[in-house]
Amino acid sequence: MACAGVDLGGTKIQAVVLDPDRRVLGSSRRPTPTVGGPGDVVAAVAAAVREAAADAELDPAALDGVGLGSPGDVDDAAGTVTSARNLPDWTGSFPVASVLGEDLGLPVSLANDVDVATVAEYELGAGRPYSSLLGVFWGTGVGGGVVLDGRLWHGRASAGEIGHMVVKLGGARCPCGRKGCMEAYAGRGAMEARARRELADGTPTELFRIMEKRGRERLTSGVFARALEQGDQVAVSLIDRAIEALGAGVASAVNLLDVEAVIIGGGLGVRLGAPYTERIERAMLPHLFSDYRPPAVRTAELGDLGGAIGAALLVGDRSAA
Amino acid sequence: MACAGVDLGGTKIQAVVLDPDRRVLGSSRRPTPTVGGPGDVVAAVAAAVREAAADAELDPAALDGVGLGSPGDVDDAAGTVTSARNLPDWTGSFPVASVLGEDLGLPVSLANDVDVATVAEYELGAGRPYSSLLGVFWGTGVGGGVVLDGRLWHGRASAGEIGHMVVKLGGARCPCGRKGCMEAYAGRGAMEARARRELADGTPTELFRIMEKRGRERLTSGVFARALEQGDQVAVSLIDRAIEALGAGVASAVNLLDVEAVIIGGGLGVRLGAPYTERIERAMLPHLFSDYRPPAVRTAELGDLGGAIGAALLVGDRSAA
Repeated sequence: MACAGVDLGGTKIQAVVLDPDRRVLGSSRRPTPTVGGPGDVVAAVAAAVREAAADAELDPAALDGVGLGSPGDVDDAAGTVTSARNLPDWTGSFPVASVLGEDLGLPVSLANDVDVATVAEYELGAGRPYSSLLGVFWGTGVGGGVVLDGRLWHGRASAGEIGHMVVKLGGARCPCGRKGCMEAYAGRGAMEARARRELADGTPTELFRIMEKRGRERLTSGVFARALEQGDQVAVSLIDRAIEALGAGVASAVNLLDVEAVIIGGGLGVRLGAPYTERIERAMLPHLFSDYRPPAVRTAELGDLGGAIGAALLVGDRSAA
Repeated sequence: MACAGVDLGGTKIQAVVLDPDRRVLGSSRRPTPTVGGPGDVVAAVAAAVREAAADAELDPAALDGVGLGSPGDVDDAAGTVTSARNLPDWTGSFPVASVLGEDLGLPVSLANDVDVATVAEYELGAGRPYSSLLGVFWGTGVGGGVVLDGRLWHGRASAGEIGHMVVKLGGARCPCGRKGCMEAYAGRGAMEARARRELADGTPTELFRIMEKRGRERLTSGVFARALEQGDQVAVSLIDRAIEALGAGVASAVNLLDVEAVIIGGGLGVRLGAPYTERIERAMLPHLFSDYRPPAVRTAELGDLGGAIGAALLVGDRSAA
């Protein structure tokens, strides 16, 4: 039978319906509510699942179940998501599985958003040829997923925080509050904050003009891509700096784990694509201990749907749970 | 039956004989030859095994076998060690298993020196309570071993290069030739080079006087320990800097892997002991993403014998192979 998967992000909710051969039958995308609370977000997730089912010409009741990839602390056994910072008023714990399950009349599986995206690339995307890999999701933050010997490594629950590996002692302040994290240089959020400071200091940049022209409130990956095409110097130097940090941080992770492959995904990773994946690969080289045998570095193949597809794999396949 | 284990280091060869309950029956230590070639080093290893057997009041022929932990690229299947940088004239590949095996009339198992020391702490030392841990060997360099779900993680062969994780982009030159590696700040070799530069620049330090008084040619861990006791400012600031780098690098590894424990061993780790392990633990905290739940940080319990004991575990237990 078919099943649904949902990637719950800070800005959008992406849902897909997969057939038993894991092909995408239908999809739906809607903005994440910016006001209200967890109940409103979960209602929007349910609506996205219904739309994706309609797009697949299926009755939602005909689905086997729903998988949800979520930010925050995800406890699949308890069916809860706690402290989802990027979602409105979601500081405590919310019983997502029971509320969503009752709304849709379907069983619900939960997992970490980055973990499901990593498993999707490992099982169906750019990671298929490999048994060990790092998923690096370069977006608002920099998330990581670790697959070793064909299995997602969770540690005590929160492995994969590659964005908070230190690349510069005493370095830039990270949105997490710490200093010198890779994300402080490479995360879209940190890059936007720096661009705003540079603009305030009088450095000319097209970034915010492009943002406004596109009706955005944030420097999205598309805004950065356009500014790079125009040769905007602030965008160019921010991305150069991000790539330098990604090179050091990802190479450090490879020095520790010696995985076969690195898969670059996330909003910026997917939007900027292969030429920038190649730049990250080159930026890793000066830091790789076994530089005579670097890992394969590939762009994520499932694009924006990766997280939702990975979440759908949770239904009947608990490898990412 | 009893078996022997040997830790082949750049300055000393440590051998032990273990009984079937893994108790140390005898041991021997001798300097690593500084001239000659791999054949001379292997002859010294054989002599150390004979001495340890004599210390245990056993005929070497009565042993089950010999395990050897070696630097360089170790290929147990082929029985070879290649490019052991710290050993005399050992740039190519040498058939250690067959030459040592013929000399002693015993089967020989080989593994990486840091890996066997990690497994020893995991099975018999400070790592016993845990199923996932990082072994951090703070000595001439900074080596690492990764145990996940009770198994040593090798990657494609060379996982665990924690000393070459980047902690400072564009930072200090590392003995490996790269920049900003943790080892560039924390390795005894790098610290000695910096102390020599500071002395040449006219900064007063007792480090080299203590070294000469002890008849050493290097700033050994014991020399550093003595200088710290005397409050030598160069020693104090070098160790402060090392601990800051270890804090960032080890925390980065924990952010990626979320292991239960970190075991601090190696020449400096063992010699400086618990107070300095606690300092490393505190230096990790500002960089830990899940700082509300830090890993246990413990000093290696097997001390200088850890590597040799771990090597002995290779005999009849190939978990570290």
